[in-house]
Amino acid sequence: MSGTDYKFEGWLGHDASAGEGKMQWGEFEPKPWEETDIDIRISHCSICGSDLHTLHSGWGPTNYPCCVGHEIVGTVVRVGSKAEGGLKLGDRVGVGAQSDSCRGRLGPCEACSSGMENYCQNKMVGTYNSVHLNGGKSYGGYATYNRVPSHFVVKIPDSISSAEAAPMLCAGVTTYAPLKHHGAGPGKTVGIIGLGGLGHFGVMWAKALNADKVVVVSRTSAKKDDAVKMGADEFIATADDPDWAKNHSSTLDIILCTVSSSSMPLMEYMSLLRFNGTFVQVGAPNDGLPSIKQFALMFKRLSITGSMIGSPDDIRDMLQLAEDKKVKPWIKEIPMKNANQAIVDFDAGKPRYRFVLAN
Amino acid sequence: MSGTDYKFEGWLGHDASAGEGKMQWGEFEPKPWEETDIDIRISHCSICGSDLHTLHSGWGPTNYPCCVGHEIVGTVVRVGSKAEGGLKLGDRVGVGAQSDSCRGRLGPCEACSSGMENYCQNKMVGTYNSVHLNGGKSYGGYATYNRVPSHFVVKIPDSISSAEAAPMLCAGVTTYAPLKHHGAGPGKTVGIIGLGGLGHFGVMWAKALNADKVVVVSRTSAKKDDAVKMGADEFIATADDPDWAKNHSSTLDIILCTVSSSSMPLMEYMSLLRFNGTFVQVGAPNDGLPSIKQFALMFKRLSITGSMIGSPDDIRDMLQLAEDKKVKPWIKEIPMKNANQAIVDFDAGKPRYRFVLAN
Repeated sequence: MSGTDYKFEGWLGHDASAGEGKMQWGEFEPKPWEETDIDIRISHCSICGSDLHTLHSGWGPTNYPCCVGHEIVGTVVRVGSKAEGGLKLGDRVGVGAQSDSCRGRLGPCEACSSGMENYCQNKMVGTYNSVHLNGGKSYGGYATYNRVPSHFVVKIPDSISSAEAAPMLCAGVTTYAPLKHHGAGPGKTVGIIGLGGLGHFGVMWAKALNADKVVVVSRTSAKKDDAVKMGADEFIATADDPDWAKNHSSTLDIILCTVSSSSMPLMEYMSLLRFNGTFVQVGAPNDGLPSIKQFALMFKRLSITGSMIGSPDDIRDMLQLAEDKKVKPWIKEIPMKNANQAIVDFDAGKPRYRFVLAN
Repeated sequence: MSGTDYKFEGWLGHDASAGEGKMQWGEFEPKPWEETDIDIRISHCSICGSDLHTLHSGWGPTNYPCCVGHEIVGTVVRVGSKAEGGLKLGDRVGVGAQSDSCRGRLGPCEACSSGMENYCQNKMVGTYNSVHLNGGKSYGGYATYNRVPSHFVVKIPDSISSAEAAPMLCAGVTTYAPLKHHGAGPGKTVGIIGLGGLGHFGVMWAKALNADKVVVVSRTSAKKDDAVKMGADEFIATADDPDWAKNHSSTLDIILCTVSSSSMPLMEYMSLLRFNGTFVQVGAPNDGLPSIKQFALMFKRLSITGSMIGSPDDIRDMLQLAEDKKVKPWIKEIPMKNANQAIVDFDAGKPRYRFVLAN
């Protein structure tokens, strides 16, 4: 079927109920092979909120059957003759949330030509629930094997374990890239809203980038000790202090908001920003953001912006930082066979702070 | 009363009906004199949308009686012994929408100490409907005289007439400052949404700053010829083309949105931005902005931000640019005595593009 002696099998969602832990194991047809591709035998794939949104058809109708998972680590088992990056059989590699972009094949592309493939406006191929340029469907990493254009494959540094590398490939770079881009570093106070899979990376990257101070904003103080262990300098539990917004007004330079809720107190969050502050929304609620009062933007010249995963180069930079600063995500390994229970537990907010499915 | 031989008189709003053309002429008590102050005999004051919002109590309860007007030009008739800026009796000067800020007198202030008094977070004293640090109320320029801290008084260059200078002091700098800050200039395509008092300045500043291309977005094509005369390279009439958003998608680098409506098609406007584009909202609808879909921010790394008038230094820079590039606002002079009719006509959208009340 796929011209190999191994089978592409994985946990498939067949309808929106899959998001309730009703994925079914089965075989799937990977994209038709091209000589620029790589096949990976998956050792680890961690669970990302996007997986749940997609299984539930939360961001729009999903193209079932769908195998989710886009924090994939494994071993190269097949290398196309035109593969990029000097990848060899046996290399330990990773794939994040994006598995292809136009790369100039559909006309000029400013984003692709400048190494920002994650902002390609011509063809964004997600690692799952997308269609490749050659017409093949993309299937994710809750599976045995993954086929992916080599341009989107990164080598994993020796000092980072496969289980630890996996969640960096989406959650990690989704938080690293905007913090880096918006100048989180010396002289800056960084706020991280929400301490989940994304947020816990946000704290650690902001510290690794030498931000002056990192402040976690969470609903309750349940995760305070964890936050401190991750490097947070301050913790705001909004449920414990009715005046939290006033008491911490104008104290942050950059906020990374990982909360994914249409009813979050957005204007109160923004009030924590100082003059010229930047609010980066990376959580993507199904129903959009709460309404913005423009006076808040005007009076302090605040910006609200978004950020979309990261490019292959961003992923490499991040892995280098992780290696240099010994950043280690907080993970729990779960056998791949228990994926259904794992997504149910994920949806219930149980990860501390990332579940990694292991084959 | 005010220690002078002249009277402070002007058009006073006594309740929200004033916004319907029911201001009443009367005397008012200016702020108690300080030796850092200047008194100005007003020759011109143009009409700004803020005047109407304030007379109507649209942005919150107005502190009546209120004399509006914050695009003031006139002649210095009294100079405090500690006045700044070398101002002399007889100088032709202007005052914009801000007449004081903390300037370090209430504690350290990053904005004031760096010449961005318009972003002072400690004490923003508007030219009307505010309270000065010494407790005096601020009254605007639909009047005979204005008393104002000298720090917020700028000299008008000889080559710019008083009537033309007046609307630059709020509408002008409100559009100039963000275009300058966000890099409108060579290599950039700038969109101006709404061609009113603010928008017509936006077009002219973007051209004066040497933007590659200036695109006006308006509802109908009624103002197309005017836009071209102001320097616009392209004109989008949204009512004339149901597919305007699609047809002009991803074509602009910077958008200055002067529309002040809670029901504007914000997401369609934002779709005109290219990757990394910036949407600057300067119009301030009474009811806030429409809801934002965060995917639009994420997919192109767009920013939405605000901007708040300009500092005295911004005003000086703008006047220099106006002098150098011979920027001339489109104005109509109206006798001060006809102020009530003028605000009614303003509210009906009649200015082409600014009404200037003249004493």
